[in-house]
Formats: sequence, C-alpha cells, structure tokens
Amino acid sequence: MTVDPSDAGVSDANARFYDALERADLDQMRDVWLRTDAAVCAHPGRTPLQGWDDVWASWEAILSSGGNPQIIITEERIHRRGGIAWVTAIENMISGGHTGAASALNVFEHDGERWRMVVHHAGPVLG
Amino acid sequence: MTVDPSDAGVSDANARFYDALERADLDQMRDVWLRTDAAVCAHPGRTPLQGWDDVWASWEAILSSGGNPQIIITEERIHRRGGIAWVTAIENMISGGHTGAASALNVFEHDGERWRMVVHHAGPVLG
Repeated sequence: MTVDPSDAGVSDANARFYDALERADLDQMRDVWLRTDAAVCAHPGRTPLQGWDDVWASWEAILSSGGNPQIIITEERIHRRGGIAWVTAIENMISGGHTGAASALNVFEHDGERWRMVVHHAGPVLG
Repeated sequence: MTVDPSDAGVSDANARFYDALERADLDQMRDVWLRTDAAVCAHPGRTPLQGWDDVWASWEAILSSGGNPQIIITEERIHRRGGIAWVTAIENMISGGHTGAASALNVFEHDGERWRMVVHHAGPVLG
C-alpha cells in the first residue's frame, strides 16, 4: 500500500465530501466513501448507521431532498497514523436563512490509491 | 510495537473510560488517555478541545463537579486497523431522574503496551 505522505490528500478527501454534500452530487458522494461493512455514518442528532448499505441509503435520501445547505468548514485538524487518518472540523451550515453548526469527526482509510471516508460522525453544536 | 490481536483490548479500554467517567475517577481517566498534542475531546453539544492540556482541564472540571451520571453503553461496534482502533457506541445517561443519550466515536491508539484513547467525540442524540 502506498500512503500519501502528506496531510494534503486527507484534506482533499475531506473537502470532496463536503463539496459532494453542498452540491448534492450523488456520484461524487459515492466515490468519496470506502464502500464496505466498516462504513459508519452518524448524522447530527441521530444514532450511527452501520455498513455501506444503510449509510448510502441515508445519503441518497438526503441529497435527493433538495434544499442543500451552504457549508463552511472551520477549525479543520488532521491526524495521520500510517494508512488511517482522522479529521475534526466544524461544519457551519447556512440554509434558507437559517444557520447551524455541527462538530464532525471523519475517519479516512487509504485504499492504496487514495484516502476514502470510512466514518463520518457529526453532532450538533448547541447554544 | 506489539498490538493486541483481538477486539477485547479495545473494548476493555473503552469500558475503562466510561467506568472512570461514571465513578469520577480522575486517576483512571488520566490513565485511559494518550496524553499528547493529538488528544481531541468533543463533549456533547460542544466544539472539540484540541491537545492534552485542554482535554484534561475539561475532565478535571467535569469529574470534580459531582452529580456523576450512570452511563449504560449500547450498540458498541469496534473497528481495528493495525495500531489504530475506533469504537462507536450510544451513551445512555441517567442522572438525577433525567435521561439523555449521546452518540460517541472514540479513537484508540496502541502505545506498545495497551490501547489508549486519543479522540473522544460525542454528540447529543435528539428527539
């Protein structure tokens, strides 16, 4: 396995995820993920979905529902250990005049070619 | 580095974290963590604290405040990749007649001896 020796590949993968979400791009969202039983996704305020089938069904529903928010990522921090990396970030969402924030921890795994998301775990920031 | 070849060591480390929280045991909480700049901790509804100094200050304040909740962990799922492991779990908290739940993603790193927490990321489960 060849692992990207810099944080840039991880940051790029993280940006592609939010770009797919913002543009409601199903193909790109599908491509971002490691599509295995290990995939986990917790949407803000919800319990985690386990395994690619359930994770993907949730993205299909969300991205098809319209009203995709503008998302501004702040406080991105990256940590890498070999072929695993994780990113913490604040997701600042603007949608229809409403604003909200979530704290995200995203885990990426290098598949030999590039970094793919294996966990997205987001929780609402309150007050 | 010798890495525990089973999920049991990860589950034990995760249990020690919640046991320290439930019993407000500062020494055990300190021992659970990898005490480095890589430590990250997001308490439910809050933005992540970065680095051991800020993480530890938050635990000192929380564990010294009294009123420690009973915590029942459900839906624990473990994934390991070499010396890194992550756990998703639902934290069901009971405190003073009130109940609440949080979704947690905990990342552990094997330090050559045992698994130590490097990230705790918890978000409230709503409605």
